[in-house]
Amino acid sequence: MALKESTRARLMQVSTATLCTALYKRGLRHQFIQDVRPLNPNGPNMVGEAFTLRYIPAREDLNPITVFQDRQHPQRAAIEQCPPGAVMVIDSRKDARAASAGSILVTRLMVRGCAGIVTDGGFRDSPEIAELGMPAYHQRPSAPTNLTLHQALDINVPIGCGDAPVFPGDVMVGDREGVVVLPAQMADELAEEAVEMTAFEDFVTDEVRKGRSILGLYPATDPRTKDDFAVWRKANDR
Amino acid sequence: MALKESTRARLMQVSTATLCTALYKRGLRHQFIQDVRPLNPNGPNMVGEAFTLRYIPAREDLNPITVFQDRQHPQRAAIEQCPPGAVMVIDSRKDARAASAGSILVTRLMVRGCAGIVTDGGFRDSPEIAELGMPAYHQRPSAPTNLTLHQALDINVPIGCGDAPVFPGDVMVGDREGVVVLPAQMADELAEEAVEMTAFEDFVTDEVRKGRSILGLYPATDPRTKDDFAVWRKANDR
Amino acid sequence: MALKESTRARLMQVSTATLCTALYKRGLRHQFIQDVRPLNPNGPNMVGEAFTLRYIPAREDLNPITVFQDRQHPQRAAIEQCPPGAVMVIDSRKDARAASAGSILVTRLMVRGCAGIVTDGGFRDSPEIAELGMPAYHQRPSAPTNLTLHQALDINVPIGCGDAPVFPGDVMVGDREGVVVLPAQMADELAEEAVEMTAFEDFVTDEVRKGRSILGLYPATDPRTKDDFAVWRKANDR
Amino acid sequence: MALKESTRARLMQVSTATLCTALYKRGLRHQFIQDVRPLNPNGPNMVGEAFTLRYIPAREDLNPITVFQDRQHPQRAAIEQCPPGAVMVIDSRKDARAASAGSILVTRLMVRGCAGIVTDGGFRDSPEIAELGMPAYHQRPSAPTNLTLHQALDINVPIGCGDAPVFPGDVMVGDREGVVVLPAQMADELAEEAVEMTAFEDFVTDEVRKGRSILGLYPATDPRTKDDFAVWRKANDR
Amino acid sequence: MALKESTRARLMQVSTATLCTALYKRGLRHQFIQDVRPLNPNGPNMVGEAFTLRYIPAREDLNPITVFQDRQHPQRAAIEQCPPGAVMVIDSRKDARAASAGSILVTRLMVRGCAGIVTDGGFRDSPEIAELGMPAYHQRPSAPTNLTLHQALDINVPIGCGDAPVFPGDVMVGDREGVVVLPAQMADELAEEAVEMTAFEDFVTDEVRKGRSILGLYPATDPRTKDDFAVWRKANDR
Amino acid sequence: MALKESTRARLMQVSTATLCTALYKRGLRHQFIQDVRPLNPNGPNMVGEAFTLRYIPAREDLNPITVFQDRQHPQRAAIEQCPPGAVMVIDSRKDARAASAGSILVTRLMVRGCAGIVTDGGFRDSPEIAELGMPAYHQRPSAPTNLTLHQALDINVPIGCGDAPVFPGDVMVGDREGVVVLPAQMADELAEEAVEMTAFEDFVTDEVRKGRSILGLYPATDPRTKDDFAVWRKANDR
Repeated sequence: MALKESTRARLMQVSTATLCTALYKRGLRHQFIQDVRPLNPNGPNMVGEAFTLRYIPAREDLNPITVFQDRQHPQRAAIEQCPPGAVMVIDSRKDARAASAGSILVTRLMVRGCAGIVTDGGFRDSPEIAELGMPAYHQRPSAPTNLTLHQALDINVPIGCGDAPVFPGDVMVGDREGVVVLPAQMADELAEEAVEMTAFEDFVTDEVRKGRSILGLYPATDPRTKDDFAVWRKANDR
Repeated sequence: MALKESTRARLMQVSTATLCTALYKRGLRHQFIQDVRPLNPNGPNMVGEAFTLRYIPAREDLNPITVFQDRQHPQRAAIEQCPPGAVMVIDSRKDARAASAGSILVTRLMVRGCAGIVTDGGFRDSPEIAELGMPAYHQRPSAPTNLTLHQALDINVPIGCGDAPVFPGDVMVGDREGVVVLPAQMADELAEEAVEMTAFEDFVTDEVRKGRSILGLYPATDPRTKDDFAVWRKANDR
Repeated sequence: MALKESTRARLMQVSTATLCTALYKRGLRHQFIQDVRPLNPNGPNMVGEAFTLRYIPAREDLNPITVFQDRQHPQRAAIEQCPPGAVMVIDSRKDARAASAGSILVTRLMVRGCAGIVTDGGFRDSPEIAELGMPAYHQRPSAPTNLTLHQALDINVPIGCGDAPVFPGDVMVGDREGVVVLPAQMADELAEEAVEMTAFEDFVTDEVRKGRSILGLYPATDPRTKDDFAVWRKANDR
Repeated sequence: MALKESTRARLMQVSTATLCTALYKRGLRHQFIQDVRPLNPNGPNMVGEAFTLRYIPAREDLNPITVFQDRQHPQRAAIEQCPPGAVMVIDSRKDARAASAGSILVTRLMVRGCAGIVTDGGFRDSPEIAELGMPAYHQRPSAPTNLTLHQALDINVPIGCGDAPVFPGDVMVGDREGVVVLPAQMADELAEEAVEMTAFEDFVTDEVRKGRSILGLYPATDPRTKDDFAVWRKANDR
Repeated sequence: MALKESTRARLMQVSTATLCTALYKRGLRHQFIQDVRPLNPNGPNMVGEAFTLRYIPAREDLNPITVFQDRQHPQRAAIEQCPPGAVMVIDSRKDARAASAGSILVTRLMVRGCAGIVTDGGFRDSPEIAELGMPAYHQRPSAPTNLTLHQALDINVPIGCGDAPVFPGDVMVGDREGVVVLPAQMADELAEEAVEMTAFEDFVTDEVRKGRSILGLYPATDPRTKDDFAVWRKANDR
Repeated sequence: MALKESTRARLMQVSTATLCTALYKRGLRHQFIQDVRPLNPNGPNMVGEAFTLRYIPAREDLNPITVFQDRQHPQRAAIEQCPPGAVMVIDSRKDARAASAGSILVTRLMVRGCAGIVTDGGFRDSPEIAELGMPAYHQRPSAPTNLTLHQALDINVPIGCGDAPVFPGDVMVGDREGVVVLPAQMADELAEEAVEMTAFEDFVTDEVRKGRSILGLYPATDPRTKDDFAVWRKANDR
């Protein structure tokens, strides 16, 4: 189920907070990736389908520095296989004591046209990654090579990331606040609903800034609110 | 016991670190709110009396998205009741996995003239909150709606926030470092003492920058230090 | 074993990530100080020999505010004894609930020509410290005076800092990512190796930016890579 | 809404695990008190209505050892007010570094006919409490007096305990595994359902012990299972 | 690579501590499963090849209570497929807030002749599991059904368990202290070495109990120690 | 300052909880070692002067298995130097991922007449240590050899243990609840006071068991309480 361009465009304009509320209404409470943040807090939003990479704890005899001479090594293979437009999501078991990846691999991902990268561990070369144009999210910077604690094992299987379930093809949305996981088959309707919610929230924010109370306004329990919103939409072309 | 304007003005000029030392001298060691930070690290300091809100863990059947249609809902009521000049302080049980509040409510609080907001959990719409003029402090950004994990229960009762005790009317002071809680009846004397301490620390910093050793200077065990300080105060009109 | 100026100069140009890989090749996996970050993320790198300070939990009767009137107090003595060019490293038992030090002491350290300061706890007056020119690293800001939880005990003994072993004279290297500890007797060879690795990584980054795959390039399993690197070094004077 | 004796009797025979499943079917996922255990793992089960006590962090000037001379002190008052048959539940903010209560108060509670006591902190005099007949649950033993970190504040208000919401009158059920919170109005139906589930699980366990596969048996997707269960119930008088 | 009966027999007589030392000598430092304990501390040791089960965080729409009606559900399938003599090892992401499994499934595993079960989360019905004859290890009891937080996904793939890497076929050894993971191809030599080490440690313990100093004895740097050990082995038929 | 035999005898009869209260009255709030427990919960109490051992994080090149061939290795030397009657206290930085010591060393300590051993990490061979007669306290069992993460460095210096300060010669008291640290110069008066407090608490417990309310009794704000206590002391020869 490919991500529609119209859905991608809608998701670029809405916040992870709004999407979390839409998910909450559907009974999904664990889709926000806990405790990750953008390396570049001033960068653009991120939207793309999840392409996953699973790490397990590293066993020392299996992880000498020479393992990367194998071109099939899952970490390197994943970087070359992640489709353009997709977001690489790494299950690092929330362990940031060693890196999930570094700037060379993330640059390659960016050059290949991928939409972003997320780990629940940490990136090395984090200052360089922060300066790339592609969105990247992690827990905290971590200089030690990933072999220190992580062995890349599986490509594109369902994983956990920051206590959220991530299935290949789920739609990852990131903003300056963090990253949310949209189940693939719900992405279109969530995007549409979030655009509507965002219009209403922008209207509410305008009203609140003018001094209006939130009571009756947010949520719109006062009938006048709906009328005012209709006027606002027309006036603001939303 | 209302916060005096003279005390508010003094507290705007001193640091949380200086106030913590003044509290330490009085035997109070747990008044700094642990693990919270300003959403806008370049924003102004914060001073105001505590107006509290207490959350408990959310029970799913009591927290459908429709609860906010009740205008008496404690979270919404608190936002409308927090007095101008006061700081809203939320006991989120140090749980940032779901939001304590979002930008619309925080904007309303600002428009109503409140002095700031603090949670030991996280805010959603954190990038927008960071751009408001009003100081806000939290643990980390958190997009999920508060209903996911928090049920607002009590308004203006004594609470814990980041392992610090907060009583309604206590004076909350925030700077770029964090937030400290001043017991209401001590606020005036702490403010006076902190202004004095700040003058001395500024003098010491000047001396240290000129190359003077801290021995005898900080603390002022060398009698010359007190003389020099007197001269400095006069010269600097402090 | 004094730190050679040539080694210091080399270490100023390489990243903690590269050094961690060089250490990994030698079987050292715990030399990165976990969970500390620069107070000024835009500041310069840090290189210097470790001069350590060890804290134990504070016992209340031994730590009234008056202890600093003793000029031999280990915290104050350490600040005056740390050699120019050295980095003060504080074992705060990873406890950031009270400060490890504040801006006056850190300013004195800077004026005395020290190269930086690191704690696995937190600094107070952190906004002021962030504006000093000298690199400083900690876990998070912490306003309470160090006496609240820490008693300075030993000067220049082997310590743990952020789960890394630190021996006096080890070479501390910090960049925007964090801090790594180089065993004293390995510093020269690590510096040389890291400079070489950095040249290769810069070459690889250039190639990746041009669109080249990492397979065969990083690591250089394709013989062409070595040839290309030789050409690049000449062209770039590296 | 008083707890019916028939419900109490049913709940004494079922496990917290079975009740959690019945709650899960109703969408309640946070009713198990996390990380508490019985002080006496060989003691009886516990059933009773919640009578709550809320602690906040202790402020040193408000908590000298003399506070207990006030007979209205909430901790002491609560012990004398908790109704016979009820379970005292203490919100200690999951902080076991100081005690929630000690053996004298717990003994008094037992003598008054209360059904048990639960804290998400720790008890002092824990070996003595373990030997009392009344069930008690905590995180871990903790010798320091509660005044060290806790100030008793509120009696019988809604609280959090081990990340579970607890409302006064909810039905607390404890077994050797832990403690679950049943919303008051659901207690009767949960008790009935759990008795039925327990009969089925006992039947299944018997079958499994005889060598039968769980497929088709648990859950009972094989129609034969239901027939066999009917026979078993008759044979075992369940 | 099947586990030899002779190796199994040897491993039943040695401790996890001794095996950890033998692994340490080979550079393996992360093979002890962190923070798990036997449900029955008086039960027998455990030896068997790892048969793994991988959980990811549960997504609510995919985990209604009805999922178990599918006989292919990985949790149920794994229980029926785990070979006799093998140890089921569950990757629960160290999350004990919901159960990894309950007594019915563990009983089935025992009846099928499996050698034990390990999770880095928690079991429900833990008092019943503790009374089964088969060794079981977990972090702490947890009554909520696994669907609350866990979705069983993969059978017999490499996993992490308590920060240790576990590959299918690795040899799991458990004693009253905990569980260690032996890489499959090292199991025979580790077993032999551990039997030898155990003989020496038993000799040393005998000597120490008689009053002999550990210096020269442990390790055997005094040549007399080796002679004495030879005599002891003969006398004790070891 | 040697521990008097009369003080030792008194301390053997009182609880860590009572001693914590006596310390609290003197302003000492951090003397209870957090999160340690007896390996043998049915063993005797422990009293003795602290003899300390300090660990730092292990650096791999300094900690091959051969280091123990050095008879001066601080871990081994400490075991042979700890005075009879003393308690060995190990600062393991609260890290139980590798052992602090094993049964052979602890047996040697016992044979040498030491009074007990405490670590804020974990012991290996913990089932064997639990069966020795000498009290031992730790966080949790840990099979990996101490070299995996710990390097023994200093003997008999002030340390932290479980967030408590421990100075050589302080008096360590352990019961089934945990371990408390008495500053050396306060030990005599604390012992006397605790014996008095214990008598009163035993009287109170007797009264409570008979049905008396705690109000007026505990603390003894009702004058009758003091009279009753005097009668009780005489009757019970206390």
